[in-house]
Amino acid sequence: MDPTDLWDEARRGDRRALARLLRIVEDRHDEARPVLADAWRRRPPSHLVGITGAPGSGKSTLTNALIATWRALDRRVGVVAVDPSSPFTGGALLGDRIRMQEHVGDPDVFIRSMSSRGRLGGLADTTAALVTVLGAAGFDPVVIETVGVGQSEVEVVHHADTVVVVLTPGWGDGVQADKAGILEIADVFAINKADRGSTTDTRRWLESMLEMAPDTNWEPPIVDTVATEGTGIDELADAIDRHRRHLITTDEGRRRRDRRVRGYVEAAVAEGMRRRMSGPDLDGVLAAVSSGALDPWTAADQLLGS
Amino acid sequence: MDPTDLWDEARRGDRRALARLLRIVEDRHDEARPVLADAWRRRPPSHLVGITGAPGSGKSTLTNALIATWRALDRRVGVVAVDPSSPFTGGALLGDRIRMQEHVGDPDVFIRSMSSRGRLGGLADTTAALVTVLGAAGFDPVVIETVGVGQSEVEVVHHADTVVVVLTPGWGDGVQADKAGILEIADVFAINKADRGSTTDTRRWLESMLEMAPDTNWEPPIVDTVATEGTGIDELADAIDRHRRHLITTDEGRRRRDRRVRGYVEAAVAEGMRRRMSGPDLDGVLAAVSSGALDPWTAADQLLGS
Repeated sequence: MDPTDLWDEARRGDRRALARLLRIVEDRHDEARPVLADAWRRRPPSHLVGITGAPGSGKSTLTNALIATWRALDRRVGVVAVDPSSPFTGGALLGDRIRMQEHVGDPDVFIRSMSSRGRLGGLADTTAALVTVLGAAGFDPVVIETVGVGQSEVEVVHHADTVVVVLTPGWGDGVQADKAGILEIADVFAINKADRGSTTDTRRWLESMLEMAPDTNWEPPIVDTVATEGTGIDELADAIDRHRRHLITTDEGRRRRDRRVRGYVEAAVAEGMRRRMSGPDLDGVLAAVSSGALDPWTAADQLLGS
Repeated sequence: MDPTDLWDEARRGDRRALARLLRIVEDRHDEARPVLADAWRRRPPSHLVGITGAPGSGKSTLTNALIATWRALDRRVGVVAVDPSSPFTGGALLGDRIRMQEHVGDPDVFIRSMSSRGRLGGLADTTAALVTVLGAAGFDPVVIETVGVGQSEVEVVHHADTVVVVLTPGWGDGVQADKAGILEIADVFAINKADRGSTTDTRRWLESMLEMAPDTNWEPPIVDTVATEGTGIDELADAIDRHRRHLITTDEGRRRRDRRVRGYVEAAVAEGMRRRMSGPDLDGVLAAVSSGALDPWTAADQLLGS
């Protein structure tokens, strides 16, 4: 079937057509380029929501609860879940099955798990491509859920319009420098599993850290949630909507879109370079570097043709 | 001072000369290229040890304890600590001070903390450069200690000869797919904080996971440690040395060096591309992508000149 026909089917809610478009893009089939060009042209102003937090903070459950809230508002929800996988467990596949269960049969929810290893493309570039296709297929919001808070995952959620950082009670205990990094990227905080302990300390810690932050005209709201019971989810969805309105009514929305465009182009360039890094030319260069005749940095200059 | 003179000073144990070489390389000064070419030519077969694990597993304390053991064997130890930092806390700087304390004044230990944000170069490329300089200055082993187990950090330790993964008692509890990823990269396991609980479950979990791993001629040893008391550190150092011998006596050593060379060249190419991604040409392309006239993937092709 022609990709153009696939689009029509996908926008009408045909899951198989959408799945095929996503697969074309993810597997870098020959048709990927026209599909992506098409998707970019068609893309509506979908709201891109990043959800991140430490493993075990309940991000998936929270995402599922948010989906239910958005569905009640008749929104079509797309999700790209960046899952780690491994030859040992096949993590992504497992994740897919668990996640899909709740919303299976709902044609207006589409969840795609993406393994962060063993992909043909780079993490950032593949996420950009999948998110673009979901947006073009009419999903709004489109959620990017990441498993960890490593640099590459932070990079990926950084391209969202609104970033939700999920914490748990007790998270503020102790001094760990690496906690601070996620403060910078959060537009909304959810303290999830609020039934497991007092959220006061985490909230207080967040507030004191936010006080030290540079002044902006958006103060990240902090919402207590119990995702497993659906508690606080409406408030969280409200906070996300408020941030969306903030983006629209201020310069910040345009600034983020510009940053995202730059990020997408950079990821695509990196991906293009990676594909070039093969062939007999490269083998000769690598052999020279291995022998010590050439250093990696001069080799890179040669490969870049400068 | 001429970089060649700095090398002579650095190899004689002059910390200020070494610090200057590292700064030239890290800050991408004009002299960085000849310094790196020089370092690559001079590099001796230093053993590159990666140490990684979840935040809070005690990696820094373990690294410090290993340094003491290696110093007792009269080895000169270099460390590149990949620290997250943030405008809020200045994490790397703090880390530097804490880490340096114990071995301050020992000219045969050099520890360099590297912030993973706000650097001019990419994480992988800067690590490669620092590690190359430390090796060329005569440090052996050279340790790369990373804070998290995100993808970019896994990439960085993947370039080591021997990767130590640090776990804690109770780590095997519950099923989390993202645990499996680190099994793939480990050559040696340390179950640290063995005084805080039984290591039996974690050990059993690891053993059962390793049984499912593809057959190789190296079975990752599992060492119980209490880094704060120095317990198990000699055994850990032994396990690392055994792996080093394994690399030398099998094909695996060459295979890893080749992989590292490829990784270094790829990182340098990515870095070179990143520096190119600026200027008026790019601005025009980004504006076209923002307006929807061009998609990011076609834009990347144009920028790559293909």
